[in-house]
Amino acid sequence: MVKIGSLFMGGDHPVVVQTMTKTDTRDVGSTVKQIHELEGRGCELVRLAVKDREAAQALRAIKREVSIPLVADIHFDARLALAAIESGADKIRLNPSNIKDPAMIREVARTAKAAGVPIRVGANLGSMDPALSRAERARALAEEALAEARLLEEEDFQDIVVSVKSSDVREMVEAVHLVAEASNYPLHLGVTEAGPLQQSLVKSSAGIGALLLDGIGDTIRYSISDSPTLEVDAAWMLLAAMDLRRRGPQIVSCPTCGRCEVPDMLSLVTQLEARLNEIAKPVMVALMGCVVNGIGEGKNADVGIACGRDQGVLFVRGQPVRHIQPAAFIDTLIAEANKL
Amino acid sequence: MVKIGSLFMGGDHPVVVQTMTKTDTRDVGSTVKQIHELEGRGCELVRLAVKDREAAQALRAIKREVSIPLVADIHFDARLALAAIESGADKIRLNPSNIKDPAMIREVARTAKAAGVPIRVGANLGSMDPALSRAERARALAEEALAEARLLEEEDFQDIVVSVKSSDVREMVEAVHLVAEASNYPLHLGVTEAGPLQQSLVKSSAGIGALLLDGIGDTIRYSISDSPTLEVDAAWMLLAAMDLRRRGPQIVSCPTCGRCEVPDMLSLVTQLEARLNEIAKPVMVALMGCVVNGIGEGKNADVGIACGRDQGVLFVRGQPVRHIQPAAFIDTLIAEANKL
Repeated sequence: MVKIGSLFMGGDHPVVVQTMTKTDTRDVGSTVKQIHELEGRGCELVRLAVKDREAAQALRAIKREVSIPLVADIHFDARLALAAIESGADKIRLNPSNIKDPAMIREVARTAKAAGVPIRVGANLGSMDPALSRAERARALAEEALAEARLLEEEDFQDIVVSVKSSDVREMVEAVHLVAEASNYPLHLGVTEAGPLQQSLVKSSAGIGALLLDGIGDTIRYSISDSPTLEVDAAWMLLAAMDLRRRGPQIVSCPTCGRCEVPDMLSLVTQLEARLNEIAKPVMVALMGCVVNGIGEGKNADVGIACGRDQGVLFVRGQPVRHIQPAAFIDTLIAEANKL
Repeated sequence: MVKIGSLFMGGDHPVVVQTMTKTDTRDVGSTVKQIHELEGRGCELVRLAVKDREAAQALRAIKREVSIPLVADIHFDARLALAAIESGADKIRLNPSNIKDPAMIREVARTAKAAGVPIRVGANLGSMDPALSRAERARALAEEALAEARLLEEEDFQDIVVSVKSSDVREMVEAVHLVAEASNYPLHLGVTEAGPLQQSLVKSSAGIGALLLDGIGDTIRYSISDSPTLEVDAAWMLLAAMDLRRRGPQIVSCPTCGRCEVPDMLSLVTQLEARLNEIAKPVMVALMGCVVNGIGEGKNADVGIACGRDQGVLFVRGQPVRHIQPAAFIDTLIAEANKL
């Protein structure tokens, strides 16, 4: 277990939702604005690229304006980690693939220890030899991270988080299993370079989800070539799907088929989704196109409508309440959800 | 292993991509049009709701116009299964939760056997008692499907596919594991009522992906409250992510961060995604915002651009080729991919 600012990670603590800003860290105004947006979506920890001394110094001004802990993302130049700690970074990420000087890593460990700042050893597949087999690459990736963790421990540094990421889902899952078997460090999960929204949701959810189902993972990050708020949304969707944590409402809705007797059912679901922010509670809202699974799912949900011919039956906590016309579906679901 | 029309499923055969039409099956023109769209996206098996005799009869006209096998989705009334087989359905799905008369199920088995038509026993959680624990529900779901499969076997019927679905990912994964341990039937995987696009991609990929990683699953279906072509796209994205099958190009692209020195990198990825249909081959195309993972991932991809300051380096099969200006990134990647 590590403590990052006031946030606990690992052990029995809830899986932490994190992401990374996409602004230039030296642009304090834009970065603070983006962090506020991310906080509003439920981001609990945010990482910022620190690519030079100016970015490291900007952390100080950014930290004054935001309430979630900041992670300084360091590559190539370990001196930037020292500068980031000096600026008040709550956690450091070091990439063992491009920071290799043991003396510098030891110095970062001593400085971080004195400041009470944890370090994530974050190894990525990008640096592995593509001629190796998948199993060999996974082993090399895990070993790269564990070797750097051992180096930190030699400086009596214990506040270590580990990640081993790849854009290859099987490799990432295999490497994480190896690290989990070999150590007790809190684990940060993610699939790197997962691509545009739909592809990343598929790849990241498959990889991170499989590990969470096995009880592995203490913090998760979706990498999406799109807005970082979508990364945070996806993380919460996955934690809810895994029944680990809930934030805001969930939709249970059918894909529809030739059995659906309510016209425009799919656009009703889209409307419901667009108005979910009007529901403050972590409730499950069902909108089902027919009675096949509709009644059952309607009963399982907190609030649900199961459609019959041209109209629906409202269920609240499993009890049928009244008939509803399609034009009133969305308003009814939102009103009933907020009444709970 | 079963044979559905000319399609093999199970054993060592590739995982089959399937989905369901959302049109009224009785509307032959719309249904045929949608099936053609789905075939064009790589759908290999398509299920149609057969909710009445007219829908069962429509299968005959639909089948004449399409080349992929058709599955008749039957609930409540097993006589519709007989009518669908009569109309040339290539496979029948029976829901054990709402078709319970053993004599009727036996009759369907005998008719299907005579016609060489496989049956999927498709149980859904919607019908389970919500007062049960998750483990109890998973066990009841698996048992419901296996009991119906045994009934079919008593009629010397062997061409059985099994599915146990739920909108609860853990429950579905648990139930599938129970069926996989207890039998050798080809397994159809899916998360029911998974909701709108983003949520369904998260839930379905986590559940189906975890099972595929364990080597379980012979056909997959994404349920999304949106266009069925998105369901097919997602299925292919998952199979590619699992390194099981490839269809068309894959994108490796970074989420970007404050390190990215190319302006509008995210919109370049969006442009690339929109033009992927111009690449005919199942190649991996990388577009990386900086050198941190860029060079490595660029090398792993078939064609890739890794950006430095205001420009990128083109990699083809791991070899750096030349510098490229951002305005030419997309055209270059597409041209080089098609040259391979």
